[in-house]
Amino acid sequence: MKTRAAVAFEAKRPLEIVEVDLEGPRAGEVLIEIKATGICHTDAYTLDGLDSEGIFPSILGHEGAGVVVEVGPGVTSVAVGDHVIPLYTPECRQCKSCLSRKTNLCTSIRATQGKGLMPDGTSRFSYKGQAIAHYMGCSTFSNFTVLPEIAVAKIRKDAPFDKACYVGCGVTTGVGAVVNTAKVEPGANAVVFGLGGIGLNVIQGLKMVGADMIVGVDLNPDKEEWGRRFGMTHFVNPKDVPDVVAHLVELTGGGADYTFDCTGNTVVMRQALEACHRGWGESIVIGVAEAGKEIATRPFQLVTGRVWRGSAFGGARGRTDTPKIVDWYMDGKIEIDPMITHTFPLEEINKAFDLMHAGESIRSVVVF
Amino acid sequence: MKTRAAVAFEAKRPLEIVEVDLEGPRAGEVLIEIKATGICHTDAYTLDGLDSEGIFPSILGHEGAGVVVEVGPGVTSVAVGDHVIPLYTPECRQCKSCLSRKTNLCTSIRATQGKGLMPDGTSRFSYKGQAIAHYMGCSTFSNFTVLPEIAVAKIRKDAPFDKACYVGCGVTTGVGAVVNTAKVEPGANAVVFGLGGIGLNVIQGLKMVGADMIVGVDLNPDKEEWGRRFGMTHFVNPKDVPDVVAHLVELTGGGADYTFDCTGNTVVMRQALEACHRGWGESIVIGVAEAGKEIATRPFQLVTGRVWRGSAFGGARGRTDTPKIVDWYMDGKIEIDPMITHTFPLEEINKAFDLMHAGESIRSVVVF
Repeated sequence: MKTRAAVAFEAKRPLEIVEVDLEGPRAGEVLIEIKATGICHTDAYTLDGLDSEGIFPSILGHEGAGVVVEVGPGVTSVAVGDHVIPLYTPECRQCKSCLSRKTNLCTSIRATQGKGLMPDGTSRFSYKGQAIAHYMGCSTFSNFTVLPEIAVAKIRKDAPFDKACYVGCGVTTGVGAVVNTAKVEPGANAVVFGLGGIGLNVIQGLKMVGADMIVGVDLNPDKEEWGRRFGMTHFVNPKDVPDVVAHLVELTGGGADYTFDCTGNTVVMRQALEACHRGWGESIVIGVAEAGKEIATRPFQLVTGRVWRGSAFGGARGRTDTPKIVDWYMDGKIEIDPMITHTFPLEEINKAFDLMHAGESIRSVVVF
Repeated sequence: MKTRAAVAFEAKRPLEIVEVDLEGPRAGEVLIEIKATGICHTDAYTLDGLDSEGIFPSILGHEGAGVVVEVGPGVTSVAVGDHVIPLYTPECRQCKSCLSRKTNLCTSIRATQGKGLMPDGTSRFSYKGQAIAHYMGCSTFSNFTVLPEIAVAKIRKDAPFDKACYVGCGVTTGVGAVVNTAKVEPGANAVVFGLGGIGLNVIQGLKMVGADMIVGVDLNPDKEEWGRRFGMTHFVNPKDVPDVVAHLVELTGGGADYTFDCTGNTVVMRQALEACHRGWGESIVIGVAEAGKEIATRPFQLVTGRVWRGSAFGGARGRTDTPKIVDWYMDGKIEIDPMITHTFPLEEINKAFDLMHAGESIRSVVVF
């Protein structure tokens, strides 16, 4: 079949909207009509050529929602007409990682996904006879896309696509880091570094689980209003204090129970660890750092009880946990609508990248 | 009263055995006759002048066992005749840390202990009228010493002093890191870096909790026999492999579930983290690094599921958990006797330091 898609033909060039060829689903695969897709920093990271493993040409996009329109042989967990979220972190429920009960990082199709291919080692997309790579196993910048069954989360049918798509990455990454990775308990004190889309979702996750003090840290004073909108109780601008770590330790009465880095800046990651409470404070790295950058601290910070961990896709098991987060949205436990600051048709997708680079959007969504 | 003690009059000089003056216990304090004391690297670290907060003159030693001979007003948890282990990590059961249920690092007397003083801000030791500092709140290189009641663990009377003293630091630090900090589960794969006294106790802790693969790593091939003696199943000498991390990841089938640094070397601490399994491997820093040294890694290591934490006194609550470890020794669940390689009278305590520096002892004990 033919489908409209925004193709990244090469790095550092705008996406081009073209008609590409899409093969139907093979065994264990499903064909999905994407109804809406968010535009995330990770897409820009690849498009800007910063990801040394980036593949071109490819169809980017990994934060979508849509409808199953065809299933390949052997598919049993979803059916035509199901509403679904594509998963860049699949959940096979069979591999060592899934069976460990300790991680959401299913490894069953990791090798081929990293190469921009379906699990059988081929691509379903092509343009003028040339293969086009899949991206993060999703390629939601195409109106139709093919995914393995294990990388598709079935969600309720009353959830609007243009909001549910955000659960495919940003919402789950932020809320999940609180719920699944840190397992924050009611009454905890927490500090969130970086109040972009991920940071705001961490904040609303903290509010949902009943945290007491929710401190937001950002260099941009305009973010204070955004933070408070989602449950932030205190705002700190590092420009306004001589030593942000000392200030946060003082503010939280000895250090935070949990801190979250949502900046990707390795200097901030260290501050986040060192702003933790002696004895038990845990710092969660969510942000993705520039290639080659390293984090550092004195080991004394760990020996005296601070814990350094990270979170990918909010520690959420794709098929099991993502639908629950959609339920939380539909039940009003978390919000999505105010975070979707801009909506575009596919033809204007490059505007969404511009807005993100300019820091003018929390989240832009393309509606097909 | 007068008591014999090995006094550190200044850094980088041998201890001197002299008679010092010791005041009796004040309110909430107990007078203990030390029957035996281990000599630990931390004592040497201070004596060698490497600890920038080291205080002189002082009476070192923090790994002892003895008998309560007098109690001050208000003491209720121990009585004259009780066998006890002095605790450099007290357990007041009242402070924010003790009540957190998340750490063993009681902070109730931290400030004065760090200054070499009793909680009321004075010293009980003096020599020729000059105050001598307490050390780590214990000063077990004195035949008699005074401790706060909250820093005394009551143990069973049939445990031999010259073995039980080792529970005051080394045994608890190693076994506790497995049991309390890492909470290693049966069937886990683990790697232990550094097979000195702490590393061997980590190994026997791993054996006790039913770990499957217990890999020891040491540059000294003579340590292989020691490791196997306590339950090590595999030995790796970094000199024998081109890339120790890659070798360990291969050997453990993808990385260890738990790794333990018992070297204090920050390069090894990084290797320990990176030898962990993607998704869930946890690395525990036990070793104390040189002042100013830092640990570093790529944040990707954390984002993909590895966890970096530390352990002090094996995560053991002094009064609650230390007596249990003595029980485990008496029940044969762990061993101590073969680790006590040398025993000396107090007069020969400097020999114990020489043996430790030469790497010829696992643990030397002074018996009074």
